[in-house]
Amino acid sequence: MMSNKKITPRKLSGFMELPPEKQIIFDNMKDKIKKVFDRNCFMPLDTPVLEYAEILLAKSGGEIDKEIYHFKKGDSELAMRYDLTVPLARFVAMNIDTLNFPFKRYQIGKVYRGEKAQKGRFREFYQCDADIIGNEQLPLVADAECVNIIYEIYKELNINAIVNISNRNILFGLVEDYGYSDKASQILTILDKLNKIGKDNAFKGLCDIGVKTKHAQDFISLALKIGNFDTILKEIEPLSKNDTFLKGIAELKELYGYIKAYNIPEDKYCLNIGIIRGQNYYTGTVFEAFSVEHPEFSSIAGGGRYDNLAEYYTDKKLPGVGMSIGFTRLFDLLDTHNMLQDSPCYPADVIIIPMGNTINTCLSLATDLKAHDIKAEVNYDGRSFKAKLKDANRKDVPYVIIVGENEVATGKYTLKDMKNSEQFNLTKEECINKVKAE
Amino acid sequence: MMSNKKITPRKLSGFMELPPEKQIIFDNMKDKIKKVFDRNCFMPLDTPVLEYAEILLAKSGGEIDKEIYHFKKGDSELAMRYDLTVPLARFVAMNIDTLNFPFKRYQIGKVYRGEKAQKGRFREFYQCDADIIGNEQLPLVADAECVNIIYEIYKELNINAIVNISNRNILFGLVEDYGYSDKASQILTILDKLNKIGKDNAFKGLCDIGVKTKHAQDFISLALKIGNFDTILKEIEPLSKNDTFLKGIAELKELYGYIKAYNIPEDKYCLNIGIIRGQNYYTGTVFEAFSVEHPEFSSIAGGGRYDNLAEYYTDKKLPGVGMSIGFTRLFDLLDTHNMLQDSPCYPADVIIIPMGNTINTCLSLATDLKAHDIKAEVNYDGRSFKAKLKDANRKDVPYVIIVGENEVATGKYTLKDMKNSEQFNLTKEECINKVKAE
Repeated sequence: MMSNKKITPRKLSGFMELPPEKQIIFDNMKDKIKKVFDRNCFMPLDTPVLEYAEILLAKSGGEIDKEIYHFKKGDSELAMRYDLTVPLARFVAMNIDTLNFPFKRYQIGKVYRGEKAQKGRFREFYQCDADIIGNEQLPLVADAECVNIIYEIYKELNINAIVNISNRNILFGLVEDYGYSDKASQILTILDKLNKIGKDNAFKGLCDIGVKTKHAQDFISLALKIGNFDTILKEIEPLSKNDTFLKGIAELKELYGYIKAYNIPEDKYCLNIGIIRGQNYYTGTVFEAFSVEHPEFSSIAGGGRYDNLAEYYTDKKLPGVGMSIGFTRLFDLLDTHNMLQDSPCYPADVIIIPMGNTINTCLSLATDLKAHDIKAEVNYDGRSFKAKLKDANRKDVPYVIIVGENEVATGKYTLKDMKNSEQFNLTKEECINKVKAE
Repeated sequence: MMSNKKITPRKLSGFMELPPEKQIIFDNMKDKIKKVFDRNCFMPLDTPVLEYAEILLAKSGGEIDKEIYHFKKGDSELAMRYDLTVPLARFVAMNIDTLNFPFKRYQIGKVYRGEKAQKGRFREFYQCDADIIGNEQLPLVADAECVNIIYEIYKELNINAIVNISNRNILFGLVEDYGYSDKASQILTILDKLNKIGKDNAFKGLCDIGVKTKHAQDFISLALKIGNFDTILKEIEPLSKNDTFLKGIAELKELYGYIKAYNIPEDKYCLNIGIIRGQNYYTGTVFEAFSVEHPEFSSIAGGGRYDNLAEYYTDKKLPGVGMSIGFTRLFDLLDTHNMLQDSPCYPADVIIIPMGNTINTCLSLATDLKAHDIKAEVNYDGRSFKAKLKDANRKDVPYVIIVGENEVATGKYTLKDMKNSEQFNLTKEECINKVKAE
């Protein structure tokens, strides 16, 4: 059965594959995010990775972005999902009559974008999304709920993050007020890049598309407003009497009230008028979270309010608000900057080492330990007792139980506390209690 | 922004997509399986869904099975994984120098097979795999460890399953002994279908390929042996003195010793010589689990010993043993036969209902409840108080807390126990204690 010609084993670039010791940390963090979603009563959804291409491409009018993995199978044009929002829209549109609204769903799953692979860019990555979808209407408190989810997640992950919040109606309102409604999208695109390109380039960009000097300065100065809600709201409120602008102010005030009610600590959020979030698709509240230690990281969570989740699939108006974390990228950032909370480790609480022909006693003992939720395994590899002990030491396991023939006879086992090299002679029950006490 | 032409929302057939209430049950079961793998100190792996087609097709010499989803992206031929074993082989071959052997890994992930969609067949499905890989050698106790994992999983899931165990050397040995080594693969293929096609057809099939009447009867009679290890071993041991056969007997005896040591209850496993498991790839121990209530279900777990995990990618000999559960299919079977342990339910422990303008107090209260790991949400939809209470009732939530303006003033909330319709007037702390006590 041996084939002679070997194929060099290799993995596609841009696809994360962690060593198992690190995968444990990844999975634990993913579980913590899931726990926050569950605790907040969001419901899980698990849509297929593959969809009809027509569904995924509805937004672009069927045009295929080169980033999208798509192919033909039989008569069907298929594509791999590139986000979790389009599948949610498809799901809600299909099940509109049986779902309860507001519908709060989360999904943690892999998405695919065949972009140019480069450091920090992945072609397959986990997204952790939570969205709240209303039928016809959705109160603004839902926006606060999504901001709070981001706060809770980063608290759970023990990462110091700050959620920067804005409302697109503020900038849109001033744009309207100054008479540039026809250029709104261009203006916001430039302001969105303010931090990247700098004030001068943004100013030049605005002037180039025909914005007057004074107005360009005002837009930039407004987009640079960042600080606590009370201060910034007081500063910007007098700037315009435009209806859209005042709607933005009113919504921010209301949102601020809810955020305080949620008891999110003051240093965990701020008002930042420069948050725009590219996509035209957001219509009110927008937010992005940043690392406090590394503000230079691009955002580590984002989201906002949209008017119409499933406009390509249904005439029903489904306003929503959602948040999303690009988890694979986040993990990679934390890993690269030595910011992971846990160290890679072997998953055993106890390794049981047979000495002599005691393997069966070891297996029984493992069964009893596991029945008490202790992670236990028997080292049955072919190596010597000494090598096995050394191996347990290298794996940094908290406890080792040695089972020699003497131990089998007396029913007392040698439990070794590997941290301080203490050794005890204990019955099975005493072993269980000692390990569980840890 | 409204597009006028709607695209009918639809999902590919053969792709499971559960309603969220049922997804909760699915996820809980998946978590239980993960817990068993963790408790047994298997390490998690999360390989990409996409691989170079060349890697996935190495086994078939590059020939493309029509079941495999494959396509070209740029210059690369890609394919979606159709199992978790080939990616494991690729991973181990790539990381052979840094892994510790025996390497115990698990993976729970989606795999893709574009088969004809039909009831109970899925094109995208979760597999839950655990494998133990040795470097050059791997003791037989590893085979018992995989059998024990299946036992532990079904115990955890509260499903009555029985693991049917055999060793392919038994049938191979008798085939050798009778002088049919050149027809071994054909004979085992026929015997593998014994239950499906019946004794008579199997007999006819064997005779058709040139097996003598007496020998055909012996093969069938051997393949029908099923019962407890002691009885069946005693019955079959005298049948042959062939080396392969005796190797099979010796391995089964040794395995039986380990299984007893693990304390797997006697009614949870048996010796069944008819277990063959199609693939040529298994070389010794083989096992399949069946539902006790529904023995007519095809196997609900399977696995076995193989000599050489990564023969297509490396010259290193990597013997292994593994188990696998086709989890999506299992869930579908249980669901179809009303065998799911839990009922679909709304994920909240408590729904908080504002009465009057008390939303901010409700949000604070939710924060405090969640800090005690209580799943709490505020019902802020636009409907009346009565409608909200009715909704909580329909969702079958255990507790409702009503926050009226009076409650805000007194700091005492109305907690409603929805099961027996009792109502209490409690402080926040008392609410927390009462819900946590549940």
